[in-house]
Amino acid sequence: MKRFFLFFITVILTGNIKAENGYELWLRYYKIDDAAILQQYRNNISSIQFTSSTPTLLAAKEELLNGLQGLLDKKITEQNLITNGCILVGTSSDPVIHSIISSNFFSKAGKEGYVIQTVTTNQKKVIVIAGNTEVGALYGCFAFLRLLQTHQNIQNLSIVSAPRIQLRMLDHWDNVNRTIERGYAGMSIWNWHKLPDYIDKRYKDYARANASIGINAVALNNVNANAIMLTKDYLIKVAALAEVFRPYGIKVYLSAKFSAPVEIGGLKTADPLDAQVQNWWKQKADEIYTYIPNFGGFLVKANSEEQPGPQTYNRTHADGANMLADALAPHGGIVIWRAFVYSNENTDDRFKQAYNEFKPFDGKFRNNVLIQVKNGPIDFQPREPFHPLFGAMPHTPLVMEFQLTQEYLGFSTHLVYLAPLFKECLDADTYEQGKNSTVSKVIDGSSEDHKLTGMAAVANIGSDIDWTGHPFAQANWYAFGRLAWDHELSAAQIADEWIRQTFTNIQHAVDTIKNIMLASREITVDYMTPLGLHHIMGYSHHYGPAPWYNAAQRADWNPVYYHKADSLGIGFDRTATGSNALAQYAPEARKQFQDLHTCDEKYLLWFHHVEWNYKMHSGRSLWDELCYKYYAGADSVKWMQQQWNSLKGFIDDERFEQVQMLLTIQQKEAVWWRNACVLYFQTFSRMPLPKGFEQPAKNLEYYESLQFPYAPGISGNQ
Amino acid sequence: MKRFFLFFITVILTGNIKAENGYELWLRYYKIDDAAILQQYRNNISSIQFTSSTPTLLAAKEELLNGLQGLLDKKITEQNLITNGCILVGTSSDPVIHSIISSNFFSKAGKEGYVIQTVTTNQKKVIVIAGNTEVGALYGCFAFLRLLQTHQNIQNLSIVSAPRIQLRMLDHWDNVNRTIERGYAGMSIWNWHKLPDYIDKRYKDYARANASIGINAVALNNVNANAIMLTKDYLIKVAALAEVFRPYGIKVYLSAKFSAPVEIGGLKTADPLDAQVQNWWKQKADEIYTYIPNFGGFLVKANSEEQPGPQTYNRTHADGANMLADALAPHGGIVIWRAFVYSNENTDDRFKQAYNEFKPFDGKFRNNVLIQVKNGPIDFQPREPFHPLFGAMPHTPLVMEFQLTQEYLGFSTHLVYLAPLFKECLDADTYEQGKNSTVSKVIDGSSEDHKLTGMAAVANIGSDIDWTGHPFAQANWYAFGRLAWDHELSAAQIADEWIRQTFTNIQHAVDTIKNIMLASREITVDYMTPLGLHHIMGYSHHYGPAPWYNAAQRADWNPVYYHKADSLGIGFDRTATGSNALAQYAPEARKQFQDLHTCDEKYLLWFHHVEWNYKMHSGRSLWDELCYKYYAGADSVKWMQQQWNSLKGFIDDERFEQVQMLLTIQQKEAVWWRNACVLYFQTFSRMPLPKGFEQPAKNLEYYESLQFPYAPGISGNQ
Repeated sequence: MKRFFLFFITVILTGNIKAENGYELWLRYYKIDDAAILQQYRNNISSIQFTSSTPTLLAAKEELLNGLQGLLDKKITEQNLITNGCILVGTSSDPVIHSIISSNFFSKAGKEGYVIQTVTTNQKKVIVIAGNTEVGALYGCFAFLRLLQTHQNIQNLSIVSAPRIQLRMLDHWDNVNRTIERGYAGMSIWNWHKLPDYIDKRYKDYARANASIGINAVALNNVNANAIMLTKDYLIKVAALAEVFRPYGIKVYLSAKFSAPVEIGGLKTADPLDAQVQNWWKQKADEIYTYIPNFGGFLVKANSEEQPGPQTYNRTHADGANMLADALAPHGGIVIWRAFVYSNENTDDRFKQAYNEFKPFDGKFRNNVLIQVKNGPIDFQPREPFHPLFGAMPHTPLVMEFQLTQEYLGFSTHLVYLAPLFKECLDADTYEQGKNSTVSKVIDGSSEDHKLTGMAAVANIGSDIDWTGHPFAQANWYAFGRLAWDHELSAAQIADEWIRQTFTNIQHAVDTIKNIMLASREITVDYMTPLGLHHIMGYSHHYGPAPWYNAAQRADWNPVYYHKADSLGIGFDRTATGSNALAQYAPEARKQFQDLHTCDEKYLLWFHHVEWNYKMHSGRSLWDELCYKYYAGADSVKWMQQQWNSLKGFIDDERFEQVQMLLTIQQKEAVWWRNACVLYFQTFSRMPLPKGFEQPAKNLEYYESLQFPYAPGISGNQ
Repeated sequence: MKRFFLFFITVILTGNIKAENGYELWLRYYKIDDAAILQQYRNNISSIQFTSSTPTLLAAKEELLNGLQGLLDKKITEQNLITNGCILVGTSSDPVIHSIISSNFFSKAGKEGYVIQTVTTNQKKVIVIAGNTEVGALYGCFAFLRLLQTHQNIQNLSIVSAPRIQLRMLDHWDNVNRTIERGYAGMSIWNWHKLPDYIDKRYKDYARANASIGINAVALNNVNANAIMLTKDYLIKVAALAEVFRPYGIKVYLSAKFSAPVEIGGLKTADPLDAQVQNWWKQKADEIYTYIPNFGGFLVKANSEEQPGPQTYNRTHADGANMLADALAPHGGIVIWRAFVYSNENTDDRFKQAYNEFKPFDGKFRNNVLIQVKNGPIDFQPREPFHPLFGAMPHTPLVMEFQLTQEYLGFSTHLVYLAPLFKECLDADTYEQGKNSTVSKVIDGSSEDHKLTGMAAVANIGSDIDWTGHPFAQANWYAFGRLAWDHELSAAQIADEWIRQTFTNIQHAVDTIKNIMLASREITVDYMTPLGLHHIMGYSHHYGPAPWYNAAQRADWNPVYYHKADSLGIGFDRTATGSNALAQYAPEARKQFQDLHTCDEKYLLWFHHVEWNYKMHSGRSLWDELCYKYYAGADSVKWMQQQWNSLKGFIDDERFEQVQMLLTIQQKEAVWWRNACVLYFQTFSRMPLPKGFEQPAKNLEYYESLQFPYAPGISGNQ
């Protein structure tokens, strides 16, 4: 019966779903196709009333009106009376709202949270959406629309939600010339040439999308920064963007080039202890705030990968960050200083360098400085253990830095849902203060009692019509925002609501898509870097496999540095017999990894050099297990394809075919990864492929010969 | 009454027109908003019948069905019977069509033309759309939809149309890394990284747009070519695009790097008389045709602006072009060899160099070689006299090269309708064979009896959602295609139909928009380069005015080379007392320009060095006239703004506001051009501004100090 029903739906749907180009993201307000749900909503919603018309509430009203009129396919009136079916939107300071909503709710909502309550007042049943601030009310409107888009029952609502993290931020690695470092979805959406006078509609739609998931901060330009961004001409352009974003509760940040006082200021030095330099930054900060009164502050990459910084002048990270912090402090601005540092001159395990450089400065930074730490110790690999700095700097607020753009995860061609990766890190236990001292508690300030907290992600947004180049890459942007708001949401929960908003509410299709998404990251790990392998991708462009690569000018840019395969085995010994990077973790945390026999095999080669015939939990030898993982990964992409193909007719043909084509590429590239890696590592193991495994179509020389001089995403700081 | 009616319409329309992002170009198939017209169409159209379902006719059917169902908001059935209101589509070889359409019509339609006839057969009134070829029928379907989009009477149709030019071509200056040389609308739409497996929907929509206006050839990559395009990996990607384009009658061409045999072939030379080189190209051509059976051929920029070419080996343009032509000939491919050459070592007037280099080879090229000549002798300036090669190479087919991308015309920020520029060149009289030997007759083969004819334009297309970065830049793409099909169409006619398809059929709005468009090019000439000034823009990026610039490594890249302003006067003496470039024109053509007193003042400073106090036809001195033009140009942009502002409510708000913002920038930049040029030339004339003219807000030093290191469109051959 169920099968028949599905068939029936398929027939009905095929050819009847409007093609979509993905531009609308998850903010699709098409008429609800479930008659019962639609009726419930129409019965409960007839008008809206806003308590004031400031820019933020106007933005909320516009969104709510468009959303309701689209979803309900019904005219929604705006009125000043409270009637049945009215949605009343405003802040807790409004007398009417104050009188009908318990202040208890508002105290839970905090500065940016919202309250959504069904209330009967004067015998009228109304829905109140309110915050202590206007932006809280705006977030409430988006949350309410999400309820409708996901077909939730709204007859008796009682919701209070507040973000667990203050600063929920996107970092754009966008260059002034509109290339994007590690960008795979077109060029930068910031059209600097036409700014400030031409305001692309995308700017507002970008702000809407961010506000809908609670993102409240954006760094506009590449951390490999160009000082020109701090010149008047560009600040005026930045100000125009800031103005578009302001009603949506979004503050603008800029990546600051540490040598800007020399490059654009005409000074001879950028030494942070030089009075002229300090003064230059103070004046620059003052100037910025004249253009952008709510400017957020600076994001800084210093003394890392050729960027200038305080060490250039024999000063410390604290000297550099504090100087900028002092310049911004009078205006309420902050400095986000990145801990992604490692040095070619330092021959110590790259894994250890950020910890070694930053831990000594714990507590030495100004109150308005945050240190931004990547989720793992190397660089956004498909799987990394959590960064040892988490839990190691209790006196300093640490910002989590995730990467949405899939630099190491198949660019915008592979379907990889990243929420499981984010959750894995956030749920990891640092044991800083005993068991259950998770990374998330470090980040949200609850373990170390920080007031200023943050979670950032390197954006995957570009000028492609669908913003992210892959329909499913939108889910990563979405998931990041939702987790930054509430890291206790599960990856499955977030996938579920994203699918319903983005594709369909038909349960069978939701489940199928969710299964694909939830499996996708582990599948990718399997065909790229199973068992704790890491950093074995193509040099410079990071496209495809190149575990053999050993010609980079820096040792720690070479894959061979990381996998250390030899005739005995494979993996990086980071125990006490090796680099002893494990010593950077708290003893209990270290215990999870340090014993070869108890270490979770997902992390095995991160920490151990393991013999080829070592017996794994499966009973297979390490070599066989490695092959097994690579083949399982590649085969699982075929499973993803089969699952996706079963959705024909449930979603619009345009996006269906788009994903189908992308999965074809992903399947080919998974086999490429598998073949190249298995053939290469076989030159060390000298063991045959396990029985029944298909021999790679080409030989190792073929894979080693492949060149990709124009792979996307390579760009300097133009 | 009329005024009241307009007011009424405005009120009705405001807020009720769906916002549009411009992606659909002129192929918008929204329900016709004129009730009488809609009724007429519904009465006359009820079904369609296609005589076969080859790929091209399937494409035609899809377009016709979508178009009719959208425009008529009515289900159109497909059937096999001839009934009243049926549209019958096919080729002249179909027996039914053959029997009801006179063969006379088909002989006029030629290979690519179409017949649209209302016919009564067996007492059924039907509309027949047919060509001698399937692509003719496809063009007919687009033409028929255009009739409906422009609200033409279709009750008794009798149309035959055939293109006057064979090769109607777009040249993309797109690089492999997706930057575009002189591109101002985002990045290249060719996503090489995801090709061949991922077929962006844009590829098909691009083909539809081109086919709708008869464009049948596209060169995909920059003429400053990268040899990698000729490697197998890229040819397979090119083949995937060619396959998308094929049903739409579009052939793919590639820009060929002359040194490819060395760069990717491993040879030591690219000498065109070397047997190994000749063989390499033959094999390469053979290989290309295995992937792309209908490959068009090569476009070549050789020995120009650092590009390699036959002269690198002391061979001639003919040696180079003929070698490539011989390689392509067995497959029916052609070579388009560009005449845009000039040399730093040659100190002769750059104006004269292409003529001097190419005229001697007239008749020396193979039959499958065409020489592509820019419309004017310098480089796509706002106004140029026609290129002296037109009419000077009777034994060689010349392809016209126009530029759609507004390299010298305000990028994608200025509204400049280029059809008047194109027409001015096409209608110019070469006097090759006496009066009325227009450039268009050279190009269409009628004066010199060429079978192979062509018109090309450098594309203005990029990844911006609206394709061209400015809604009105779409009109230039459109106008080029229409003129390549029929150069006798007027600029006004083309504007009229484009406006109706793109914005509205409301007469008042059509007229207002048309007035703006038709005036726009002359306005731009006035605020940029009046009275025959040319090439006085910013160095390298070509953004904004820089008549003072004199620091380029080549003399003929400097503005001062072109305007030659001094204390006596201004302008380039190209008469017999100067460079004598005029001698390259036929005597009668030369006469139009050679006498200072009778030369059309629009071309004055192209040919004469004129004293500052020379008395112009207006009675004003040259200096006053120059000021007058600059001020009139800038003021006229304000007029454009006023006109545009009057359209609020007649078109959708999104595009209305977009153009409004762009006009604001255009107005500012027009004043910038005016001020910078007037102040600079005043340092030579030492004469005051005419009375009542506003003094520029800033001084000359200010304008000279402006720097634009990240102006868009500068890029090498990546």
